[in-house]
Amino acid sequence: MVTVNGVSYKNVQIHDPFWTKYRNLVRDEVIPYQWNALNDRIEDAAPSHAIQNFRIAAGEEEGNFYGYIFQDSDVAKWLEAVAYGLAATPDPELEKLADETIDLLGRAQQADGYLNTFFTIKYPDRRWSNERDDHETYCAGHLIEAAVAYYETTGKIKLLDIACKLADHIDTVYGAEEGKLRGYPGHQEIELALMRLYEATGDERYLKLSRYFIDERGQEPNYFKLEADKRAERFGRESLLAEGYYHLYKHNYEYNQSHLPVREQQHAVGHAVRAVYMYAGMTDVAAETQDQSLFEACKRLWDNVTRRQMYITGGIGSNHDGEAFSFDYDLPNDTAYTETCASIGLIFWAHRMLHLDPDGKYADVIERALYNGTISGMSLDGKSFFYVNPLEVWPEACKRPDKKHVEPVRQKWFNCACCPPNLARLIASLGGYIYSQSEHIAYVHQYIGSDTKLEVAGRHVRLSQKTNFPWDETIELAVSPDRPGEFTVAVRIPGWCEGAAIQVNGQPVSVEANLHKGYAAITREWKAGDIVLIVLPMPIERVYANPNVRVNAGKVALQRGPVVYCLEQVDNGAILPDISLSEHAALYARFEPDVLSGVTVITGEAVRGEWPGGDTPLYAKKKRIEHSVKIQAIPYFAWANRGAGEMLVWIRER
Amino acid sequence: MVTVNGVSYKNVQIHDPFWTKYRNLVRDEVIPYQWNALNDRIEDAAPSHAIQNFRIAAGEEEGNFYGYIFQDSDVAKWLEAVAYGLAATPDPELEKLADETIDLLGRAQQADGYLNTFFTIKYPDRRWSNERDDHETYCAGHLIEAAVAYYETTGKIKLLDIACKLADHIDTVYGAEEGKLRGYPGHQEIELALMRLYEATGDERYLKLSRYFIDERGQEPNYFKLEADKRAERFGRESLLAEGYYHLYKHNYEYNQSHLPVREQQHAVGHAVRAVYMYAGMTDVAAETQDQSLFEACKRLWDNVTRRQMYITGGIGSNHDGEAFSFDYDLPNDTAYTETCASIGLIFWAHRMLHLDPDGKYADVIERALYNGTISGMSLDGKSFFYVNPLEVWPEACKRPDKKHVEPVRQKWFNCACCPPNLARLIASLGGYIYSQSEHIAYVHQYIGSDTKLEVAGRHVRLSQKTNFPWDETIELAVSPDRPGEFTVAVRIPGWCEGAAIQVNGQPVSVEANLHKGYAAITREWKAGDIVLIVLPMPIERVYANPNVRVNAGKVALQRGPVVYCLEQVDNGAILPDISLSEHAALYARFEPDVLSGVTVITGEAVRGEWPGGDTPLYAKKKRIEHSVKIQAIPYFAWANRGAGEMLVWIRER
Repeated sequence: MVTVNGVSYKNVQIHDPFWTKYRNLVRDEVIPYQWNALNDRIEDAAPSHAIQNFRIAAGEEEGNFYGYIFQDSDVAKWLEAVAYGLAATPDPELEKLADETIDLLGRAQQADGYLNTFFTIKYPDRRWSNERDDHETYCAGHLIEAAVAYYETTGKIKLLDIACKLADHIDTVYGAEEGKLRGYPGHQEIELALMRLYEATGDERYLKLSRYFIDERGQEPNYFKLEADKRAERFGRESLLAEGYYHLYKHNYEYNQSHLPVREQQHAVGHAVRAVYMYAGMTDVAAETQDQSLFEACKRLWDNVTRRQMYITGGIGSNHDGEAFSFDYDLPNDTAYTETCASIGLIFWAHRMLHLDPDGKYADVIERALYNGTISGMSLDGKSFFYVNPLEVWPEACKRPDKKHVEPVRQKWFNCACCPPNLARLIASLGGYIYSQSEHIAYVHQYIGSDTKLEVAGRHVRLSQKTNFPWDETIELAVSPDRPGEFTVAVRIPGWCEGAAIQVNGQPVSVEANLHKGYAAITREWKAGDIVLIVLPMPIERVYANPNVRVNAGKVALQRGPVVYCLEQVDNGAILPDISLSEHAALYARFEPDVLSGVTVITGEAVRGEWPGGDTPLYAKKKRIEHSVKIQAIPYFAWANRGAGEMLVWIRER
Repeated sequence: MVTVNGVSYKNVQIHDPFWTKYRNLVRDEVIPYQWNALNDRIEDAAPSHAIQNFRIAAGEEEGNFYGYIFQDSDVAKWLEAVAYGLAATPDPELEKLADETIDLLGRAQQADGYLNTFFTIKYPDRRWSNERDDHETYCAGHLIEAAVAYYETTGKIKLLDIACKLADHIDTVYGAEEGKLRGYPGHQEIELALMRLYEATGDERYLKLSRYFIDERGQEPNYFKLEADKRAERFGRESLLAEGYYHLYKHNYEYNQSHLPVREQQHAVGHAVRAVYMYAGMTDVAAETQDQSLFEACKRLWDNVTRRQMYITGGIGSNHDGEAFSFDYDLPNDTAYTETCASIGLIFWAHRMLHLDPDGKYADVIERALYNGTISGMSLDGKSFFYVNPLEVWPEACKRPDKKHVEPVRQKWFNCACCPPNLARLIASLGGYIYSQSEHIAYVHQYIGSDTKLEVAGRHVRLSQKTNFPWDETIELAVSPDRPGEFTVAVRIPGWCEGAAIQVNGQPVSVEANLHKGYAAITREWKAGDIVLIVLPMPIERVYANPNVRVNAGKVALQRGPVVYCLEQVDNGAILPDISLSEHAALYARFEPDVLSGVTVITGEAVRGEWPGGDTPLYAKKKRIEHSVKIQAIPYFAWANRGAGEMLVWIRER
C-alpha cells in the first residue's frame, strides 16, 4: 500500500474561471441563505428550528424540539462550510457568527460530553437506545468534521474541544470492551470524522474507535436486531419514528450495510450516502493501519460502484426507495435517484482511495462527479437545489407516483436539507482535491486554476496552474522549487483523453513513455520558473454504455473533456426522445459567453420524425416522416436553469 | 343513437381451434381450482375463507370474518363463470355445487335483504357508512351479475331473488329522495349490474337506481367527503382500513372518478377498473334512456382511453400506485400496471359502445384486448395468472421497489383474487361478443368459429363460422335464413387489415363499395347455404407508436392480424434491448404446432452488438461490434410460459 499525502484546502488558493464563480456563490449566496434558514428567517421555506433547538437544549429558551432527528447536523455542516470559506476569504463578521454559534453548542453540551438536542430536549432517557434510526453518531460525525475544519482554518480550539468531549463520551458508550454497547452507526459518517479528529489531535483513541465501528459492523448476531429487541422490551415499541419512516430500516440490514462484515461485502448495496461515507471511513482506516484486507474490500467495492452502478454523470444510487444502490447495470435514466450528496460522498471516498493507491482512475471519478452530477444539484445563481439528479426528464411524468421524487425545477430549500450544505462544503474545500505529494512526487490531480506549495524531495515547491478548463484544452503549470533539484511532477492524463501532449519549457515530453497509472510522471531537474504546458485534446466524444445497461441500448451520450452534455427542450423543442443523431453527423463545440453564464455548447444536425395530419392515432403502420433538425446540447450540470422542460442525456443514435 | 341488440352467450356455440382450448381450460382448470381456493383447499395458496365467511354470516359456523373487505365478490364471480360455463357444457355436479352455494348465500342474507358477510359478521352497525372504501355496492354488483347469468343459463330464480332483495334494499339506502343517502359507489360495478338486472326483470327501479348513481356521482359537495366527516364524528376515525390502504382514496376523488360529474369528465383518470366499469354502466344507461349528453361523455372518454392511454396490447392503467390511468401518452413499458381486469373491463365497455354505435373501432379494441392483454393474464395450462401485464421485463429489475408490482412469472393465485375469475367469466361468456343483430342487419364482430341463430328481417338466420383465426386469414361464414330474403350481413374489416377480400358463393363482392364504419355490409337476397368467404390478409406488420409516446421512439412492434408479438430471452438470449431490427429486414411467419401449444412465430434477421474483451467498462468511446442474429418473436399473450426471462414488445428499429 502506497500512501500519498493530501494537500489541505488551506494551502491551495483557487483562481479559476470555472470554479471561482461557484465558490463565490457558496460564499455570497449559499452560506448566508443557510444561516437564515437555520434561524428560520426565510419566509417561504419550511422552518428549520436548528439553532433554536440548541438554545432550548442549552436551557436558554423555552420550547420543544422541532425538525428531523438529525436536525443538529445542519448546523454542523454550515460551520464546516464556513470554515472552508474563511480559509479562502477572511470575513470577521462571519467568523464572529460562527464563534457565537460554537459558544451556543458548548452551552448545549451536557456535562458528560453528550451533545444532541433531540435527545437532550425530548428523550434524555433514550440516548443510545436506537442507533439504527436515531442518527446520534451521524450528528456527532458532522460536528467533529466541522470542528476539525474550523480548527484547521482558524486555529481556534473551542469547537475541537467540544468535539473531543463528545467523541470521548461516545468512546465510553460503544466498543468491544466489557460494559460498552457492541454497536455501530446506523448512518455511517462518524468513522471518517473520527479519522479526521485523530489526524488533527493525534489521539489514538479516535482511530481505535473508528476501526472498532468498521470491524464490528455486520458481525453476528446483528446489533440492530439485538438493539430493537431490547427497545421493544424497554419502551414497548421498536422505534420513535412513524412506521412509514422506518420500514426501510426494519429488518433490512442491507439498507445500512450491516448485512455482512465489511470485509465480506462484494456489492454496493443500500442507502448510497451511508455506503460511500462508510467506504471512505474504511479507506481511512485501511491507510492508517495498513490493513490489506480492508483495502481489498475497498477496491472490490470501488470496482462494483464505478464499473457497474455509476451513471455517466458520476451519480450513484439508482433507487428512489431507500435512496439506494440497485443491482449491477440497473441505471434507469428517468427514475434515477442519484442524490447530490451521494456523488459528493463518492468524491470523498475517491479522494481517499487516490491517496492509498495513486491511480488516475480515482481522480477521473472525482472529475466526473465534480463537473457533472454534483454541481447539477445547484442552480447557476446558487439559490435553488436538486436532491435528485435524473438523466432524463419529462416534466409531466413527474406526476407519476413512481417518479414523484424527480423534480423538473430546483427547489429553494428542503425539509431534509442535506444536499445544499454538502455541496457548499465540497465547493468551499475544493482546494483539497487538486494536489498531493509524496516524498519525491508532486501530483496534479485536477485542472483548476490555483496555487499551492508542496514539500517534495526536501524542497518547497510552488505549483501554479492557469487554465480555462473544462472549456479549453490547455493547462499551464508553473513549477518552482525553492532550489533546483530532481523530483517528479505527475500530472493526470484523464481517462477520457487521447493524444495528450506535454511540453516542459517549450520542449516536448513524451506522455506515453512517462505514463504510469493515469499520470504522466515527469522526472527531471526542476528549477524555479519551469513551465509545463499540458494539452488535453477535447474533441466531442460519443460515449456508449455497456450493453448490459439495457436502457441505453442504441443510445449515445455526448461528452467533451470531462463534461457530459444533455439536450433541453428550450433549445430543441419537446419530445426529445424523438431526436436521433446520425453516427456520422458532424458536431461542433463553441464557447458561448452568454449562454448559462458561459458554457461550451455542442451543435449539429439530427433527425426528427413527424406524423402528418392533426389528431394522430396512437399506433399506426406508417412511419414518421423524418426531417433534419439543428440540435444544441448543453453541459448536463447546467440543465434546468431556464424553466421547466424536458431533458435528455442519452440520445438515440442512427 | 342507433341501438343494436347483442346476441347472448347462451345462443352461441363456440367450436374454435384457438378459443375452445381456453374455454376448456376455464372449465377444467380455472373453475375447479377457484372452487377449491374459495373453500381453502389449496395447500400452498393464501387462505380465501370466502365460503366460510358466508357460513359464519348464516349462523352455521362459529368464527370470524377473514379476507379482504370485498371477499364475497370472489364467490359471486365464481358463480357467474359457472353460469356461462354451464351454458356451453352442462355439468349436473357443478350445477349442484352452485345451487348449494346459492342456498348458502340465501341463508346468509339478512331479513332486510342486506348481504355482505364482512359487515354482518364484524360490523353490523357500520353498514353503508363508508361507501368510499367498503365495497358494499361492489360486492352487490357482482352478486347481481352472477344472479342474472345463472338465471339466463339455468332459468333458476333463487339467486335472482336474492339479488333483487339486495338491490331493493340498496334502493332504500341510496337515492335522491328524502331520507336516503345521496351516495354512490366507491368502486363502481353495480351500475352495469343493475342494468343487467333491469334487463332480466324489467323492473324499472333498477334502471332508475343505476341512473341515479351515475347522475349523482361527482356532484358538489362530494359525498365521500361528507361521508368521511360523518364517520369521523360517529366512530372517531375515518376508516376501518389501515392508513396504508386508504391513502389512495383519501382526498383523492380522481381515484374513484368522483372528482367531477360524469358528463364533465374529459380524461380517463384514477383506478382503471373502477373507470371502465363505470363507463360501461354509463353506456348502458345512455342506451336505455337515449341520453345524448351521457353518450357524448362516453365517446369523449373512449377517445381519450383508446387514442391516448392504451397500450398496443389493449392494456390500460399505466400507473402501479392506484392501479390507475396516468396522463396522455404516458405508457411506460417496463413499469406498466395494465391489470388483466382493466383490459377485461375495457372489453365490457367496448361491447356496450358497439351496440350504441355500431362502429368497427369498438370491436377492434375488443379484438386487440382479447388476443393480447387479457389472455396474457393466464398461463397456457390455465394454472397461473398475471395481475400485471408489462410490455418489457428484465426479471432482475423486478427487485427494484418501483417495479415490485411486475412479476416475471405467473402466480398460482392472489390474495386479491380478482383477475383469474374475471378472465374466467370473460372467456366463458365469449359467445356474447361475436354477433349482434338489428332489424335488418346481422353483425359479425369477431372471427371465432361458432354457430348462432339471429332474427333479422323477420327471419331466423343461422350463422356459422369456420376459421383458424388468428393464425389463418380465411373465414368461412355460412348464412342460412329459414327462408330467403333481403337483409344485410355486416362483417367487420379489422382496423389492422388492408386488402380484405370477400366472396359470396364464390363471387367477389367489393369490400370498398360496401364498407361502412369498419364493416363490409353485404345486402342481398340471402338463402340457406350461402357461403361468405372472408379473406383478411395478414402480412407481418410493423407498427409504430405516436411520437408523443416517448418510450417507444425509434422502436417498432410486430403484429400479425390482431396478434402483437414479443421477443423472449429463451428464444433470443439475454439483453433483448440490444437487438435491433433493420427497417428492411425480411420477416417470416410460420405456424409451429409444437411451440406454446401451437402459435404462429415470426422469424428474421436482426442485429446485436458486443463489446470485445472480458470485463468490459461501464462507458466507452468504442461502439459495440455488430453482428447479425436470427430472432424469433412469439405472440405476446403466450409469453412467460417457458420459465423466467426477459421479454420485450417494442424492438429498436434501425
